[in-house]
Amino acid sequence: MDVYQAIATRRDVRAEFTGQVVDDATLMKLLQAAHRAPSVGNSQPWDFVVIREPGMLDDFAAHVALQRQRFADSLPEGRRNTFDPIKIEGIRESGTGVVVTYDHGRGGPHILGRHTISDAGLFSAVLAIQNLWLAAVTEGIGVGWVSFYEEQFLAELIDAPAHIRPIAWLCVGPVREFAERPDLERFGWRTGRPLEDAVHWGRYRA
Amino acid sequence: MDVYQAIATRRDVRAEFTGQVVDDATLMKLLQAAHRAPSVGNSQPWDFVVIREPGMLDDFAAHVALQRQRFADSLPEGRRNTFDPIKIEGIRESGTGVVVTYDHGRGGPHILGRHTISDAGLFSAVLAIQNLWLAAVTEGIGVGWVSFYEEQFLAELIDAPAHIRPIAWLCVGPVREFAERPDLERFGWRTGRPLEDAVHWGRYRA
Repeated sequence: MDVYQAIATRRDVRAEFTGQVVDDATLMKLLQAAHRAPSVGNSQPWDFVVIREPGMLDDFAAHVALQRQRFADSLPEGRRNTFDPIKIEGIRESGTGVVVTYDHGRGGPHILGRHTISDAGLFSAVLAIQNLWLAAVTEGIGVGWVSFYEEQFLAELIDAPAHIRPIAWLCVGPVREFAERPDLERFGWRTGRPLEDAVHWGRYRA
Repeated sequence: MDVYQAIATRRDVRAEFTGQVVDDATLMKLLQAAHRAPSVGNSQPWDFVVIREPGMLDDFAAHVALQRQRFADSLPEGRRNTFDPIKIEGIRESGTGVVVTYDHGRGGPHILGRHTISDAGLFSAVLAIQNLWLAAVTEGIGVGWVSFYEEQFLAELIDAPAHIRPIAWLCVGPVREFAERPDLERFGWRTGRPLEDAVHWGRYRA
């Protein structure tokens, strides 16, 4: 699939998972795409933890449900009504969770390109996620990035050592379709802004 | 171009810029690709500042040269010798700098999906960079991510308000070719690890 087509049809999938589980060969293609991401100083500070054990999916889903409720409770009433119908996860339905983790110590003390920007390594791990996401679209596989969790909970769930930071839970699985419009637009949560508002020439807001 | 082909041929370009300047129509295609990235709560917290003014390119290049020297000075001798021949920028040669910025306040106080993970918005802006990068490969345009700078310097260079964080300077321009092997491998700085080392099943290092 063409890069622009993948970028345009990519969706954050929550409700469209078929319930089938992605086969290992396809999953490895997606992880290989992620692993080909650029990284600061070629440090490749990411890891991918694949989770399919029903008990672990259930534990994480229950934790996310709790965080969802806490977020709902934090909203003013009008926003809460808008939020209520929005599905925020697909942990069990996708059948596969991929936890992406970040290791700040990977590559030793002298990371080329991270001398002044400590977050540069973290950014590398995020780039890997977008590679995976676009490759997934090519395969008809949906990805939903769940961020309604406490990092400590997820770190313990996957038995991560103290220096390993989980940065994403990705629900990965076959989908019936990619929705034409993003969920958050369809449900009236927030619409995007035009590109022109995001582009500045020469200086910020110049 | 196919997604996998773009992912495989993408390089962090430093030395291969032709010296031609990317035309505006192509640049806008790349920025549109970036702008189609997923974002937490559809907050689209990114902005893109396009810099072509020679004086600004020179100022930034001089700042980066200084940081390069500081990094070299921080290295033990063996590593310094490995680092010396590696080109770390192409600020003037690319002819176009795209500074990607992050606005933590974009979208108001209730960002869906950022309730527990403060960095989730920052991650969104990074995803946009990978979209741009892959679209650029499709167009025969190179991207080099320069991270040898102090954020405060870059913020002042682009007149960013205090709440706007510059997260990347991307050198964007036509290239002669995409190198077969990444520079950091060719120059012996650091080679990648196999995918198998990055994939864990069920639990981290399980």
